[in-house]
Amino acid sequence: MKKFWTLLKDKPRLWHIIFESDDRESKAFDLTVMIAIVISLVVAFVESMPSVAGLYKDILTVLEYALTFFFTVEYLLRIYCSPVKREYVMSFFGIIDLLATLPLYLSFLLPSTKYMFILRAFRLIRIFRVLKLFAFINEGYLLLESIKRSMNKILVYFLFVIVLVTIIGTLMYMLEGQQPDTQFTDIPTSIYWAIVTMTTVGYGDITPVTVVGRLLSALVMILGYTIIAVPTGIVSATMINETKRKGVNGRCPRCNQKTDLNANYCKHCGERL
Amino acid sequence: MKKFWTLLKDKPRLWHIIFESDDRESKAFDLTVMIAIVISLVVAFVESMPSVAGLYKDILTVLEYALTFFFTVEYLLRIYCSPVKREYVMSFFGIIDLLATLPLYLSFLLPSTKYMFILRAFRLIRIFRVLKLFAFINEGYLLLESIKRSMNKILVYFLFVIVLVTIIGTLMYMLEGQQPDTQFTDIPTSIYWAIVTMTTVGYGDITPVTVVGRLLSALVMILGYTIIAVPTGIVSATMINETKRKGVNGRCPRCNQKTDLNANYCKHCGERL
Amino acid sequence: MKKFWTLLKDKPRLWHIIFESDDRESKAFDLTVMIAIVISLVVAFVESMPSVAGLYKDILTVLEYALTFFFTVEYLLRIYCSPVKREYVMSFFGIIDLLATLPLYLSFLLPSTKYMFILRAFRLIRIFRVLKLFAFINEGYLLLESIKRSMNKILVYFLFVIVLVTIIGTLMYMLEGQQPDTQFTDIPTSIYWAIVTMTTVGYGDITPVTVVGRLLSALVMILGYTIIAVPTGIVSATMINETKRKGVNGRCPRCNQKTDLNANYCKHCGERL
Amino acid sequence: MKKFWTLLKDKPRLWHIIFESDDRESKAFDLTVMIAIVISLVVAFVESMPSVAGLYKDILTVLEYALTFFFTVEYLLRIYCSPVKREYVMSFFGIIDLLATLPLYLSFLLPSTKYMFILRAFRLIRIFRVLKLFAFINEGYLLLESIKRSMNKILVYFLFVIVLVTIIGTLMYMLEGQQPDTQFTDIPTSIYWAIVTMTTVGYGDITPVTVVGRLLSALVMILGYTIIAVPTGIVSATMINETKRKGVNGRCPRCNQKTDLNANYCKHCGERL
Repeated sequence: MKKFWTLLKDKPRLWHIIFESDDRESKAFDLTVMIAIVISLVVAFVESMPSVAGLYKDILTVLEYALTFFFTVEYLLRIYCSPVKREYVMSFFGIIDLLATLPLYLSFLLPSTKYMFILRAFRLIRIFRVLKLFAFINEGYLLLESIKRSMNKILVYFLFVIVLVTIIGTLMYMLEGQQPDTQFTDIPTSIYWAIVTMTTVGYGDITPVTVVGRLLSALVMILGYTIIAVPTGIVSATMINETKRKGVNGRCPRCNQKTDLNANYCKHCGERL
Repeated sequence: MKKFWTLLKDKPRLWHIIFESDDRESKAFDLTVMIAIVISLVVAFVESMPSVAGLYKDILTVLEYALTFFFTVEYLLRIYCSPVKREYVMSFFGIIDLLATLPLYLSFLLPSTKYMFILRAFRLIRIFRVLKLFAFINEGYLLLESIKRSMNKILVYFLFVIVLVTIIGTLMYMLEGQQPDTQFTDIPTSIYWAIVTMTTVGYGDITPVTVVGRLLSALVMILGYTIIAVPTGIVSATMINETKRKGVNGRCPRCNQKTDLNANYCKHCGERL
Repeated sequence: MKKFWTLLKDKPRLWHIIFESDDRESKAFDLTVMIAIVISLVVAFVESMPSVAGLYKDILTVLEYALTFFFTVEYLLRIYCSPVKREYVMSFFGIIDLLATLPLYLSFLLPSTKYMFILRAFRLIRIFRVLKLFAFINEGYLLLESIKRSMNKILVYFLFVIVLVTIIGTLMYMLEGQQPDTQFTDIPTSIYWAIVTMTTVGYGDITPVTVVGRLLSALVMILGYTIIAVPTGIVSATMINETKRKGVNGRCPRCNQKTDLNANYCKHCGERL
Repeated sequence: MKKFWTLLKDKPRLWHIIFESDDRESKAFDLTVMIAIVISLVVAFVESMPSVAGLYKDILTVLEYALTFFFTVEYLLRIYCSPVKREYVMSFFGIIDLLATLPLYLSFLLPSTKYMFILRAFRLIRIFRVLKLFAFINEGYLLLESIKRSMNKILVYFLFVIVLVTIIGTLMYMLEGQQPDTQFTDIPTSIYWAIVTMTTVGYGDITPVTVVGRLLSALVMILGYTIIAVPTGIVSATMINETKRKGVNGRCPRCNQKTDLNANYCKHCGERL
């Protein structure tokens, strides 16, 4: 406890613990926040199921109070240790953090439960904080790096898919839309069907019935089958290059010693990676 | 406005702006056309939904007049600046461009709305013009190049899939077609089912019910699972070779400077790519 | 016609034309047979659709007579030019070729149409002859070679998938089988469901309803998602090695000249491929 | 028979045959056990189908007695030849082996068939023993090795997918959950839907109906499409590296002679693999 008061006076250290994640204490803090977020998620899950929520009403109320208290303390600490308070408060996560504390307080003022639900949803957005942790696991770094490096190509590919899907959806609407009791009621629905089909999801809520419609569908499926190969090819090529640059399993290809994944030169022998 | 009249006299420059896409002005022209095509798409989407179309009737009418005016001017300009007018008018896009202007004009002559719909569909074909732009983005170039280079192999693979699917579809028709209330009513339907299954789309509108039919289905699925690997392997292998040839991230493997993607030799050091 | 009689006397040449496919005339013969097979397929397709078959009854009858005549002549020629006649007659394709000629002849003797149907099905098996042609297209050769080389690994992977699917199917039967109105009626059905799910086909004819069942399903799906990567990895790795061995696009890595795909040494410079 | 009694006295040899799988006799023993497990699986399959089980009641009873006898003898032999008996009896497979022998014995004591069913299920767990064999096939070794080496990355990827799926599921519940007769009844169901969609399984038991819901679904599908590329990229990259390290088709890159797959140096020329 005494340690906590000492820490409270050392603002830069407190800021480091709360906002960074590179030593033991800051990681412990992040982990605690993560656990609180996961608990708040579970509470939200249970509350969305009326039959189960009825059984555990008391526990849910206690957890609600505890979580609100925790998130409030966390929010105040974050403001307290920020060098430029206004910057944090107005930032994306600053607003999210504030909204996460509000639901319970507002329930004292407002009786309606409907708005409560929407406010509580903001608490779920805090799960994005978890993503921050990925950058500190070696494998996570490689994953994010490969995705980032493939981004440009994948975006272009997305554009390509959207154009394709629009053409196919419109064609299907023309072929199937005139049928009585057709499920292809309008062009956007047909485009939705084209996406469902080309990605091989295939719900089956919208299916062609005419012979020509089925023929076009078959073509779209085999096409989609081939197109699935494109982003796979992109990411595979990127990953293989990435692995080659960084050495197999993060080892330098010259001296075979472990290197950091974000390094451009081997720290042991200076080899360009 | 004065600039426009000057331009109108300089036919070769006008032709360059309209038919090419490699400098600032020609790209601006292409973009304007793209926006008009996208707007005409949105209009078509909304008109296919009767309930929504009723609400925005006035806006849709205005947009229809504006788009017809724009497409007419564009069509006339294209004819005007073409050196060999007949060639453009009789070309694929020449006919499409003409058809894109017609719907409104014909609605003054013909009262029927059914033919109108088909004519308007031609306007959608103009979306193919968008694909032209892909060749000017570096990533798009790599994408199209990889697909083009894999084309031969993928076509052979298609043939292979079609033969396979015919055999499987016929077998399933023999196994399941004799069942009362079977969904495998004829061989083309069974082949359609085989494609839906092998591509892992799996709508579920046609499913086997006999034990032998399910056994064959299970085999087909695991087979399809493996076959999905073939085009992925083709495209991955092509992309990795392509990346190697052009250098990682479009850099020369020798001097590490940026190269053009369609170059065969590095423009900085002459290295064969 | 005279040429045909000359050819009929030159048995070895006739045999070469009919059974091989490596020069212009033998390819022409194969193509003719392929076209006849495709026509017989289309006839079978149409006959499986009673409503359409009624409309084209006369054409179908004529085609049936023509095909039977063609297949009979082909069968007799194959026997005639074989050096060891008994060998061909008793071979797999010899029996299939015989069965392909029978349906019409038997319909004069037997009135029942049911057995006719099964006999006609054998004609469809002749489509396998098409596969023979793949070996003569360069891309087809690479495709078949890659599949052949990956076969061992893919078979082991199949075994692995079968074991996995059995375990998962049995677990799901234990979790969901006790529910009233369950779709998991027995273990084989549950295994069928596991295959449908793991291959991401997902018909939706059998779906879990309990919370634990859905949790296990979710796990199976994400697992299947990862497992789909294994054969892709196998084939990609094989294809990249194959391309490297044979040179990019079938060119020798040393002298950059075109090589044959089944060559182990470059025919221009002797480089080991 | 005499050979069997001799063997029974040579405990270390017996232990080697039963617990290892690296020579002819131990492989034969493993195969016998595998066959018994497969038969016990088939018996369990048939017994889960009441209509079929009725027909083969006698055979099933005989097989049940035979299997129980076989598993009992195997269990006793395993205890007998273990140097530290307690260690085997308390091990995971020791307990499974015991449970596999119990169902029949317990049916003499207890009349209830319900508990019998659960006990018999443990027999199915013995199928995991089959996986042990994979390590002794060269291709199986490469498969397991590639999966093991990719494990870290795939686990991180799993975590990533779970976070993503939670966010998407919650969003969909907010968008679709307010609809009358919605299938998105609570957040866990929505997350289940998100997994079914992102893995492209697409049962179709839960489908969006609102325009915004369908738009988000379309996004999720195209996203899932790209994300499917990540583990494929991981495994492909690992496999290609693995193949390179061990040489193409398990041959040393220097002397081109066959190497063992778990070797780090070529046994013929000492090349580092």
